[in-house]
Amino acid sequence: MARSPFSVDDLERLKVSAGFTEEDRRYLQLAGEVLADQTKQIVERWRSGIIAGIPHLAKHSRTPEGNPIPEYLAASNLRFEQWIVDTCMRPYDQDWLNYQQEIALRHTSAKKNKTDQVRSTSCVPLEDVIAFVAVMNQTIKPFLAAKGHSQEEVSRMHLAWTKALQLQLALWVEPYSREHSEREF
Amino acid sequence: MARSPFSVDDLERLKVSAGFTEEDRRYLQLAGEVLADQTKQIVERWRSGIIAGIPHLAKHSRTPEGNPIPEYLAASNLRFEQWIVDTCMRPYDQDWLNYQQEIALRHTSAKKNKTDQVRSTSCVPLEDVIAFVAVMNQTIKPFLAAKGHSQEEVSRMHLAWTKALQLQLALWVEPYSREHSEREF
Repeated sequence: MARSPFSVDDLERLKVSAGFTEEDRRYLQLAGEVLADQTKQIVERWRSGIIAGIPHLAKHSRTPEGNPIPEYLAASNLRFEQWIVDTCMRPYDQDWLNYQQEIALRHTSAKKNKTDQVRSTSCVPLEDVIAFVAVMNQTIKPFLAAKGHSQEEVSRMHLAWTKALQLQLALWVEPYSREHSEREF
Repeated sequence: MARSPFSVDDLERLKVSAGFTEEDRRYLQLAGEVLADQTKQIVERWRSGIIAGIPHLAKHSRTPEGNPIPEYLAASNLRFEQWIVDTCMRPYDQDWLNYQQEIALRHTSAKKNKTDQVRSTSCVPLEDVIAFVAVMNQTIKPFLAAKGHSQEEVSRMHLAWTKALQLQLALWVEPYSREHSEREF
Protein backbone atom coordinates (compact mmCIF):
# COMPACT_ATOMS: atom_id res chain seq x y z
CA MET A 1 0.00 0.00 0.00
CA ALA A 2 1.23 3.48 -0.90
CA ARG A 3 2.16 6.13 1.64
CA SER A 4 0.44 9.50 1.19
CA PRO A 5 2.57 12.65 1.06
CA PHE A 6 -0.33 14.29 2.95
CA SER A 7 -0.54 14.34 6.71
CA VAL A 8 -3.71 14.50 8.75
CA ASP A 9 -2.92 18.20 9.31
CA ASP A 10 -2.75 18.77 5.56
CA LEU A 11 -6.11 17.07 5.29
CA GLU A 12 -7.58 19.33 7.95
CA ARG A 13 -6.51 22.35 5.90
CA LEU A 14 -7.96 20.82 2.74
CA LYS A 15 -11.27 20.20 4.53
CA VAL A 16 -11.36 23.88 5.42
CA SER A 17 -10.63 24.81 1.79
CA ALA A 18 -13.56 22.62 0.72
CA GLY A 19 -15.92 23.79 3.48
CA PHE A 20 -16.16 20.19 4.70
CA THR A 21 -17.73 20.25 8.16
CA GLU A 22 -18.69 17.90 10.95
CA GLU A 23 -22.25 18.03 9.62
CA ASP A 24 -20.99 16.80 6.24
CA ARG A 25 -19.25 13.96 8.07
CA ARG A 26 -22.57 12.95 9.69
CA TYR A 27 -24.52 13.14 6.44
CA LEU A 28 -21.84 11.10 4.69
CA GLN A 29 -22.32 8.43 7.32
CA LEU A 30 -26.06 8.46 6.59
CA ALA A 31 -25.30 8.34 2.86
CA GLY A 32 -23.17 5.27 3.54
CA GLU A 33 -26.08 3.55 5.22
CA VAL A 34 -28.33 4.47 2.30
CA LEU A 35 -25.88 3.39 -0.40
CA ALA A 36 -24.35 0.29 1.22
CA ASP A 37 -26.71 -2.23 -0.37
CA GLN A 38 -26.91 -0.36 -3.69
CA THR A 39 -23.21 -0.24 -4.59
CA LYS A 40 -23.45 -3.02 -7.17
CA GLN A 41 -26.24 -1.20 -9.03
CA ILE A 42 -24.43 2.14 -8.79
CA VAL A 43 -21.21 0.78 -10.27
CA GLU A 44 -23.26 -1.07 -12.90
CA ARG A 45 -24.89 2.25 -13.82
CA TRP A 46 -21.51 4.00 -14.10
CA ARG A 47 -19.67 1.20 -15.89
CA SER A 48 -22.26 -0.40 -18.17
CA GLY A 49 -24.67 2.51 -18.33
CA ILE A 50 -22.19 5.30 -18.97
CA ILE A 51 -18.49 4.46 -19.33
CA ALA A 52 -19.08 1.52 -21.69
CA GLY A 53 -20.72 3.93 -24.14
CA ILE A 54 -17.83 6.42 -24.15
CA PRO A 55 -14.88 5.02 -26.15
CA HIS A 56 -12.25 7.35 -24.64
CA LEU A 57 -13.26 6.17 -21.15
CA ALA A 58 -14.13 2.55 -21.91
CA LYS A 59 -10.66 1.90 -23.36
CA HIS A 60 -9.08 2.10 -19.92
CA SER A 61 -10.47 -1.30 -19.01
CA ARG A 62 -9.81 -2.88 -22.42
CA THR A 63 -6.73 -4.18 -24.22
CA PRO A 64 -4.88 -1.85 -26.60
CA GLU A 65 -6.73 -3.70 -29.38
CA GLY A 66 -10.06 -2.76 -27.81
CA ASN A 67 -11.02 -6.18 -26.45
CA PRO A 68 -12.77 -6.46 -23.11
CA ILE A 69 -10.87 -7.90 -20.13
CA PRO A 70 -13.75 -9.28 -18.06
CA GLU A 71 -11.67 -10.30 -15.03
CA TYR A 72 -10.05 -6.82 -14.88
CA LEU A 73 -13.44 -5.17 -15.06
CA ALA A 74 -14.88 -7.50 -12.41
CA ALA A 75 -11.99 -6.89 -10.00
CA SER A 76 -11.98 -3.14 -10.49
CA ASN A 77 -15.78 -3.01 -10.16
CA LEU A 78 -15.49 -4.66 -6.75
CA ARG A 79 -12.93 -2.02 -5.72
CA PHE A 80 -15.21 0.68 -7.11
CA GLU A 81 -18.11 -0.65 -4.99
CA GLN A 82 -15.96 -0.74 -1.88
CA TRP A 83 -14.81 2.80 -2.58
CA ILE A 84 -18.39 4.10 -2.44
CA VAL A 85 -18.83 2.75 1.08
CA ASP A 86 -15.35 3.87 2.13
CA THR A 87 -16.04 7.39 0.87
CA CYS A 88 -19.02 7.58 3.18
CA MET A 89 -18.08 5.54 6.21
CA ARG A 90 -14.34 5.28 6.74
CA PRO A 91 -12.64 7.68 9.10
CA TYR A 92 -10.54 10.17 7.14
CA ASP A 93 -7.24 9.37 8.88
CA GLN A 94 -3.70 8.58 7.73
CA ASP A 95 -4.75 5.09 6.55
CA TRP A 96 -7.44 6.67 4.43
CA LEU A 97 -4.96 9.21 3.05
CA ASN A 98 -2.64 6.32 2.11
CA TYR A 99 -5.60 4.58 0.46
CA GLN A 100 -6.28 7.74 -1.59
CA GLN A 101 -2.66 7.72 -2.71
CA GLU A 102 -3.01 4.07 -3.75
CA ILE A 103 -6.20 4.84 -5.71
CA ALA A 104 -4.51 7.67 -7.57
CA LEU A 105 -1.39 5.63 -8.34
CA ARG A 106 -3.57 2.85 -9.75
CA HIS A 107 -4.88 5.34 -12.30
CA THR A 108 -1.36 6.37 -13.39
CA SER A 109 1.39 4.39 -15.09
CA ALA A 110 3.00 3.78 -11.70
CA LYS A 111 0.43 1.13 -10.79
CA LYS A 112 -2.34 0.88 -13.40
CA ASN A 113 -2.69 -2.68 -14.80
CA LYS A 114 -0.08 -4.01 -12.38
CA THR A 115 -2.39 -5.13 -9.59
CA ASP A 116 -4.44 -7.17 -12.02
CA GLN A 117 -1.59 -8.07 -14.38
CA VAL A 118 -3.38 -6.89 -17.49
CA ARG A 119 -2.52 -5.14 -20.74
CA SER A 120 -4.50 -1.90 -21.03
CA THR A 121 -3.97 1.87 -21.32
CA SER A 122 -1.10 3.03 -19.14
CA CYS A 123 -2.98 5.86 -17.44
CA VAL A 124 -6.43 7.38 -17.01
CA PRO A 125 -5.89 11.10 -17.70
CA LEU A 126 -6.56 13.20 -14.61
CA GLU A 127 -8.69 15.51 -16.78
CA ASP A 128 -11.15 12.70 -17.39
CA VAL A 129 -11.16 11.65 -13.75
CA ILE A 130 -12.01 15.22 -12.74
CA ALA A 131 -14.70 15.47 -15.41
CA PHE A 132 -16.24 12.11 -14.54
CA VAL A 133 -16.67 13.20 -10.93
CA ALA A 134 -19.44 15.45 -12.28
CA VAL A 135 -21.20 12.36 -13.65
CA MET A 136 -20.82 10.48 -10.37
CA ASN A 137 -22.21 13.48 -8.50
CA GLN A 138 -25.20 13.77 -10.81
CA THR A 139 -26.06 10.09 -10.94
CA ILE A 140 -25.65 9.29 -7.24
CA LYS A 141 -28.63 11.44 -6.35
CA PRO A 142 -31.47 8.98 -7.12
CA PHE A 143 -29.60 6.32 -5.14
CA LEU A 144 -29.41 8.70 -2.17
CA ALA A 145 -33.14 9.30 -2.50
CA ALA A 146 -34.04 5.61 -2.80
CA LYS A 147 -34.63 4.94 0.89
CA GLY A 148 -37.37 7.45 1.60
CA HIS A 149 -35.39 10.24 3.24
CA SER A 150 -36.75 13.78 3.04
CA GLN A 151 -35.67 16.03 0.18
CA GLU A 152 -33.72 18.11 2.72
CA GLU A 153 -31.84 15.04 4.00
CA VAL A 154 -31.11 13.87 0.46
CA SER A 155 -29.75 17.34 -0.39
CA ARG A 156 -27.48 17.32 2.64
CA MET A 157 -26.23 13.82 1.90
CA HIS A 158 -25.59 14.87 -1.68
CA LEU A 159 -23.73 18.01 -0.64
CA ALA A 160 -21.54 15.97 1.71
CA TRP A 161 -20.88 13.42 -1.05
CA THR A 162 -19.83 16.11 -3.55
CA LYS A 163 -17.45 17.66 -1.02
CA ALA A 164 -15.97 14.24 -0.21
CA LEU A 165 -15.31 13.63 -3.91
CA GLN A 166 -13.72 17.04 -4.33
CA LEU A 167 -11.45 16.36 -1.34
CA GLN A 168 -10.42 13.06 -2.84
CA LEU A 169 -9.73 14.66 -6.23
CA ALA A 170 -7.45 17.11 -4.44
CA LEU A 171 -5.56 14.18 -2.91
CA TRP A 172 -5.21 12.44 -6.28
CA VAL A 173 -3.33 15.33 -7.92
CA GLU A 174 0.04 14.71 -6.31
CA PRO A 175 0.65 11.20 -7.72
CA TYR A 176 -0.35 12.54 -11.13
CA SER A 177 2.15 15.36 -10.87
CA ARG A 178 4.89 12.69 -11.00
CA GLU A 179 3.50 11.47 -14.28
CA HIS A 180 4.79 13.44 -17.23
CA SER A 181 1.87 15.28 -18.72
CA GLU A 182 0.73 12.24 -20.73
CA ARG A 183 -2.26 13.24 -22.74
CA GLU A 184 -3.84 10.13 -24.09
CA PHE A 185 -7.11 11.49 -25.41
CA MET B 1 -2.85 35.65 -23.73
CA ALA B 2 -1.88 31.99 -23.34
CA ARG B 3 -2.58 29.29 -25.93
CA SER B 4 -4.38 26.21 -24.63
CA PRO B 5 -2.90 22.78 -25.34
CA PHE B 6 -6.52 21.64 -25.70
CA SER B 7 -8.38 21.75 -28.99
CA VAL B 8 -12.13 22.12 -29.38
CA ASP B 9 -12.21 18.37 -30.12
CA ASP B 10 -10.46 17.65 -26.80
CA LEU B 11 -13.08 19.80 -25.12
CA GLU B 12 -15.90 17.87 -26.79
CA ARG B 13 -14.47 14.65 -25.32
CA LEU B 14 -14.14 16.27 -21.90
CA LYS B 15 -17.76 17.42 -22.06
CA VAL B 16 -18.77 13.82 -22.70
CA SER B 17 -16.64 12.67 -19.73
CA ALA B 18 -18.45 15.22 -17.54
CA GLY B 19 -21.92 14.51 -18.94
CA PHE B 20 -22.16 18.14 -20.04
CA THR B 21 -25.10 18.41 -22.43
CA GLU B 22 -26.85 20.97 -24.59
CA GLU B 23 -29.41 21.31 -21.80
CA ASP B 24 -26.62 22.23 -19.38
CA ARG B 25 -25.50 24.85 -21.90
CA ARG B 26 -29.00 26.37 -21.90
CA TYR B 27 -29.31 26.37 -18.11
CA LEU B 28 -25.85 27.94 -17.81
CA GLN B 29 -27.08 30.72 -20.03
CA LEU B 30 -30.07 31.22 -17.72
CA ALA B 31 -27.71 31.10 -14.72
CA GLY B 32 -25.69 33.85 -16.37
CA GLU B 33 -28.78 36.04 -16.65
CA VAL B 34 -29.59 35.36 -12.99
CA LEU B 35 -26.06 35.97 -11.71
CA ALA B 36 -24.99 38.88 -13.94
CA ASP B 37 -26.02 41.66 -11.55
CA GLN B 38 -24.99 39.72 -8.44
CA THR B 39 -21.34 39.04 -9.27
CA LYS B 40 -19.99 41.73 -6.96
CA GLN B 41 -21.87 40.27 -3.98
CA ILE B 42 -20.87 36.72 -4.88
CA VAL B 43 -17.18 37.56 -5.04
CA GLU B 44 -17.56 39.58 -1.84
CA ARG B 45 -19.06 36.52 -0.19
CA TRP B 46 -16.20 34.30 -1.38
CA ARG B 47 -13.38 36.73 -0.68
CA SER B 48 -14.41 38.61 2.45
CA GLY B 49 -16.91 36.08 3.78
CA ILE B 50 -14.83 32.93 3.34
CA ILE B 51 -11.27 33.23 1.98
CA ALA B 52 -10.31 36.13 4.26
CA GLY B 53 -11.02 33.90 7.27
CA ILE B 54 -8.83 31.02 6.07
CA PRO B 55 -5.13 31.90 6.49
CA HIS B 56 -3.80 29.28 4.05
CA LEU B 57 -6.08 30.71 1.34
CA ALA B 58 -5.99 34.41 2.29
CA LYS B 59 -2.20 34.50 2.04
CA HIS B 60 -2.36 34.19 -1.74
CA SER B 61 -3.49 37.79 -2.05
CA ARG B 62 -1.16 39.14 0.64
CA THR B 63 2.54 39.92 0.84
CA PRO B 64 4.92 37.29 2.23
CA GLU B 65 4.78 39.28 5.48
CA GLY B 66 0.99 38.87 5.58
CA ASN B 67 0.04 42.43 4.69
CA PRO B 68 -2.97 43.08 2.47
CA ILE B 69 -2.39 44.32 -1.09
CA PRO B 70 -5.67 46.18 -1.74
CA GLU B 71 -5.00 46.98 -5.40
CA TYR B 72 -4.16 43.32 -6.13
CA LEU B 73 -7.33 42.17 -4.41
CA ALA B 74 -9.42 44.76 -6.23
CA ALA B 75 -8.03 43.82 -9.64
CA SER B 76 -8.35 40.10 -9.07
CA ASN B 77 -11.87 40.53 -7.68
CA LEU B 78 -12.89 42.21 -10.92
CA ARG B 79 -11.46 39.28 -12.88
CA PHE B 80 -13.26 36.89 -10.54
CA GLU B 81 -16.57 38.70 -11.19
CA GLN B 82 -16.04 38.58 -14.93
CA TRP B 83 -15.21 34.87 -14.69
CA ILE B 84 -18.64 34.12 -13.19
CA VAL B 85 -20.40 35.64 -16.19
CA ASP B 86 -17.95 34.06 -18.63
CA THR B 87 -18.50 30.64 -17.07
CA CYS B 88 -22.19 30.96 -17.81
CA MET B 89 -22.41 32.96 -21.01
CA ARG B 90 -19.30 32.70 -23.16
CA PRO B 91 -19.20 30.15 -25.95
CA TYR B 92 -16.83 27.32 -25.06
CA ASP B 93 -14.58 27.69 -28.09
CA GLN B 94 -10.83 27.94 -28.69
CA ASP B 95 -10.72 31.48 -27.28
CA TRP B 96 -12.39 30.25 -24.12
CA LEU B 97 -9.93 27.35 -23.91
CA ASN B 98 -7.07 29.82 -24.18
CA TYR B 99 -8.69 31.92 -21.46
CA GLN B 100 -8.83 28.85 -19.20
CA GLN B 101 -5.13 28.29 -19.80
CA GLU B 102 -4.45 31.91 -18.86
CA ILE B 103 -6.51 31.55 -15.67
CA ALA B 104 -4.60 28.45 -14.64
CA LEU B 105 -1.19 29.98 -15.41
CA ARG B 106 -2.11 33.00 -13.28
CA HIS B 107 -2.48 30.64 -10.34
CA THR B 108 0.96 29.08 -10.89
CA SER B 109 4.43 30.58 -10.65
CA ALA B 110 4.43 31.06 -14.42
CA LYS B 111 2.13 34.08 -14.18
CA LYS B 112 0.90 34.64 -10.62
CA ASN B 113 1.72 38.17 -9.34
CA LYS B 114 3.14 39.19 -12.70
CA THR B 115 0.02 40.73 -14.24
CA ASP B 116 -0.42 42.96 -11.20
CA GLN B 117 3.27 43.37 -10.40
CA VAL B 118 2.90 42.34 -6.77
CA ARG B 119 4.85 40.38 -4.19
CA SER B 120 2.74 37.46 -2.92
CA THR B 121 2.81 33.64 -2.78
CA SER B 122 4.21 32.15 -5.96
CA CYS B 123 1.41 29.69 -6.55
CA VAL B 124 -2.07 28.69 -5.36
CA PRO B 125 -1.81 24.91 -4.86
CA LEU B 126 -4.07 23.02 -7.25
CA GLU B 127 -5.33 20.95 -4.28
CA ASP B 128 -6.82 24.08 -2.73
CA VAL B 129 -8.29 25.24 -6.03
CA ILE B 130 -10.01 21.87 -6.43
CA ALA B 131 -11.24 21.91 -2.83
CA PHE B 132 -12.50 25.49 -3.05
CA VAL B 133 -14.65 24.59 -6.05
CA ALA B 134 -16.81 22.71 -3.52
CA VAL B 135 -17.31 25.97 -1.63
CA MET B 136 -18.17 27.89 -4.80
CA ASN B 137 -20.66 25.18 -5.75
CA GLN B 138 -22.33 25.25 -2.35
CA THR B 139 -22.50 28.99 -1.97
CA ILE B 140 -23.66 29.86 -5.49
CA LYS B 141 -27.02 28.19 -4.90
CA PRO B 142 -28.83 31.00 -3.02
CA PHE B 143 -27.68 33.44 -5.72
CA LEU B 144 -29.16 31.15 -8.39
CA ALA B 145 -32.40 31.07 -6.41
CA ALA B 146 -32.53 34.85 -5.87
CA LYS B 147 -34.61 35.72 -8.93
CA GLY B 148 -37.70 33.65 -8.26
CA HIS B 149 -37.08 30.66 -10.52
CA SER B 150 -38.70 27.36 -9.62
CA GLN B 151 -36.80 24.87 -7.47
CA GLU B 152 -36.50 22.63 -10.54
CA GLU B 153 -34.96 25.44 -12.61
CA VAL B 154 -32.58 26.38 -9.81
CA SER B 155 -31.50 22.73 -9.54
CA ARG B 156 -30.84 22.52 -13.25
CA MET B 157 -28.91 25.79 -13.27
CA HIS B 158 -26.89 24.54 -10.31
CA LEU B 159 -26.17 21.19 -11.96
CA ALA B 160 -24.97 22.97 -15.11
CA TRP B 161 -22.80 25.31 -13.01
CA THR B 162 -21.14 22.42 -11.15
CA LYS B 163 -20.38 20.63 -14.43
CA ALA B 164 -18.94 23.82 -15.91
CA LEU B 165 -16.62 24.21 -12.93
CA GLN B 166 -15.53 20.59 -13.13
CA LEU B 167 -14.76 21.05 -16.85
CA GLN B 168 -12.70 24.12 -16.06
CA LEU B 169 -10.80 22.32 -13.30
CA ALA B 170 -9.94 19.63 -15.82
CA LEU B 171 -8.55 22.31 -18.13
CA TRP B 172 -6.48 23.87 -15.33
CA VAL B 173 -4.51 20.69 -14.60
CA GLU B 174 -2.16 20.87 -17.55
CA PRO B 175 -0.50 24.22 -16.68
CA TYR B 176 -0.04 22.92 -13.14
CA SER B 177 1.66 19.78 -14.40
CA ARG B 178 4.50 22.02 -15.60
CA GLU B 179 4.90 23.34 -12.10
CA HIS B 180 7.07 21.12 -9.98
CA SER B 181 4.93 19.66 -7.28
CA GLU B 182 5.24 22.76 -5.07
CA ARG B 183 3.39 22.09 -1.90
CA GLU B 184 2.92 25.33 -0.08
CA PHE B 185 0.43 24.29 2.55
